[in-house]
Amino acid sequence: MEHYYALIMAGGGGTRLWPLSRGNMPKQFLPLVEDDSMFRVSVTRLAPLFPPDHIYVVAGARYAESLRADAPEIPEGNFVLEPSARDSAPAAALGVAVIAKRDPEATIVILTADHHIADKPGFRNALASAYELAQTGAIVTLGIKPDHPSTGFGYIRRGDFLTQIKGLDCYRSLGFSEKPDAPRAAEFIASGEYSWNSGMFAWKADTAFREYERQQPAMMASIRQIQKAVDTPDYPQVLAEHWEKIDKISIDYAVMEKAEQMAVIPVDFGWSDVGSWSALFDVLDQDEHGNITKGSAPHRIDITSHNTLVFSDKMVVTIGVDDLIIVQTDDAVLVCHKDRSQDVKTVVEQLKKQHKSEYL
Amino acid sequence: MEHYYALIMAGGGGTRLWPLSRGNMPKQFLPLVEDDSMFRVSVTRLAPLFPPDHIYVVAGARYAESLRADAPEIPEGNFVLEPSARDSAPAAALGVAVIAKRDPEATIVILTADHHIADKPGFRNALASAYELAQTGAIVTLGIKPDHPSTGFGYIRRGDFLTQIKGLDCYRSLGFSEKPDAPRAAEFIASGEYSWNSGMFAWKADTAFREYERQQPAMMASIRQIQKAVDTPDYPQVLAEHWEKIDKISIDYAVMEKAEQMAVIPVDFGWSDVGSWSALFDVLDQDEHGNITKGSAPHRIDITSHNTLVFSDKMVVTIGVDDLIIVQTDDAVLVCHKDRSQDVKTVVEQLKKQHKSEYL
Repeated sequence: MEHYYALIMAGGGGTRLWPLSRGNMPKQFLPLVEDDSMFRVSVTRLAPLFPPDHIYVVAGARYAESLRADAPEIPEGNFVLEPSARDSAPAAALGVAVIAKRDPEATIVILTADHHIADKPGFRNALASAYELAQTGAIVTLGIKPDHPSTGFGYIRRGDFLTQIKGLDCYRSLGFSEKPDAPRAAEFIASGEYSWNSGMFAWKADTAFREYERQQPAMMASIRQIQKAVDTPDYPQVLAEHWEKIDKISIDYAVMEKAEQMAVIPVDFGWSDVGSWSALFDVLDQDEHGNITKGSAPHRIDITSHNTLVFSDKMVVTIGVDDLIIVQTDDAVLVCHKDRSQDVKTVVEQLKKQHKSEYL
Repeated sequence: MEHYYALIMAGGGGTRLWPLSRGNMPKQFLPLVEDDSMFRVSVTRLAPLFPPDHIYVVAGARYAESLRADAPEIPEGNFVLEPSARDSAPAAALGVAVIAKRDPEATIVILTADHHIADKPGFRNALASAYELAQTGAIVTLGIKPDHPSTGFGYIRRGDFLTQIKGLDCYRSLGFSEKPDAPRAAEFIASGEYSWNSGMFAWKADTAFREYERQQPAMMASIRQIQKAVDTPDYPQVLAEHWEKIDKISIDYAVMEKAEQMAVIPVDFGWSDVGSWSALFDVLDQDEHGNITKGSAPHRIDITSHNTLVFSDKMVVTIGVDDLIIVQTDDAVLVCHKDRSQDVKTVVEQLKKQHKSEYL
């Protein structure tokens, strides 16, 4: 797999883990599950499948310094910086363009910087399978085996069986469905044909550009101009000039939903998008009372509480409480019922409306 | 009532309101119920019954500066400072000794610095009644009308009706009972004969010294020596010398339980000792959902929570939680079920055992 590259999309914001995640401290920089930041863990788990010079990172320029400091083994030129946020379709195209300029035979797996994966060898095995299948010209999505009828994820429907690679069954994909309502999600699960869209997929660089060219010709024209300048002194100026012309659009909407030769490999490697405090709760180890204490050197004293997550760097005392998520930062405290963590985004909206930007 | 004096006992510690109350910041210094500190409120509510020069304060020397700053209208010489903590019997005796040296005809009401009183005119009316009854040589306790069979207070049993003063019935007292167990507390309430011991009582200075002399002759001998030196240059040295000889003992145990000529005036002026977070909850105004937000300039955002007290100077967000007490300080957060606030003292004990003195 000497032409295989990982492209980590590390630009996301996200405030569903407020008050810990903030505008200048998004999820990927937080040590949510393991002791290192989500981004650092995302890099570490790629070894030994990808040598450091085969790992690329695309992110907003504002995060460059933090990301480089967090992954010093990745060559500086592998950090592909967006001059401004243009959503995921342009970000992925830019990353692919830089890699393909340096290795036109590249196969690239698009990865996230802020998801948890429990079974790391299983994850790498799935990436190796996706590489092989991508050689056929397919866009190979990793579909997560669903464990409940979530309305929070997109779904991928599988079609005909294609082959088995490294023990994993590979299927033709019958397409993407956006986040369904509850009855539809229940149907999806009952059918047994659907996986969750993890946002992770592998493709050859020329397969990627075939689809961008076909579906997003204007964007692709700008990307081609930028690609020509990669690794030349003109790059910063050319990037700045063309980047601003590109529309904001997500990769699912711009490319994936109507792409040809889609395949899906259903996987089950303990994936979580850690998209809410309760999702984090589910992936952390609980003590015998169901309690969890996280943070850098947190002190916790508890008297008869249960199923309560404390995330803090300071002293937190819990007495006789159940099913809570308690998060303390320097300037705010969140106390939220475990089943209500989706409402954190409502709080962030209220803070925006009240122009309390110091909390965002 | 030109010989009437108030003696505020402001020396107490207490950690039942941890993490807000601390060793160097006891309850009386906290603005728990009103906007001012409990001590400041205790002083303010004495006007117009007591002019400032008839208000005395007894407290540990370590609190002198804070107390004086909080009540600048009280003459500096009215702050009676204990060189070390000797419990309430010596503290009251010292205060009485200083007042009586300056006005041998003094009648003195002993008051607390950290209790809440809702009906302030009713309170002052009761103090005026107690003054009159004290002229007979009685020790006049203010007995709080109990509203539940508390096991957290001492009780005073009333005997024969004595008289009515300013609309209040006055009774002979049949004595004190220490904090009872639950069945006994229920009996007390059922009998209708008992009041809670508020710790507030009025006596003439010579009545006080009659009882100290009779019951605590050794202590009284030291107090006499100290009294002779009051308002002389020798006072600091004489105080230091004799104070250390005095045993630590509470006024209830040393004097009140076996005192003669005890009387009780049952009162009902919205008293609370604010002895726990749930006691504080009960005296604060709740919004239509039963929620309370206190602190200096607290920000609170709430989504569908109920019966939850937030005490903080910072941003606190509550989502879908019920019946909680949430207290944030610079270095600690407490999240406690409303019915479990008595367990705060267990936490303080644990902190002591763990030698975490920075939290005490």
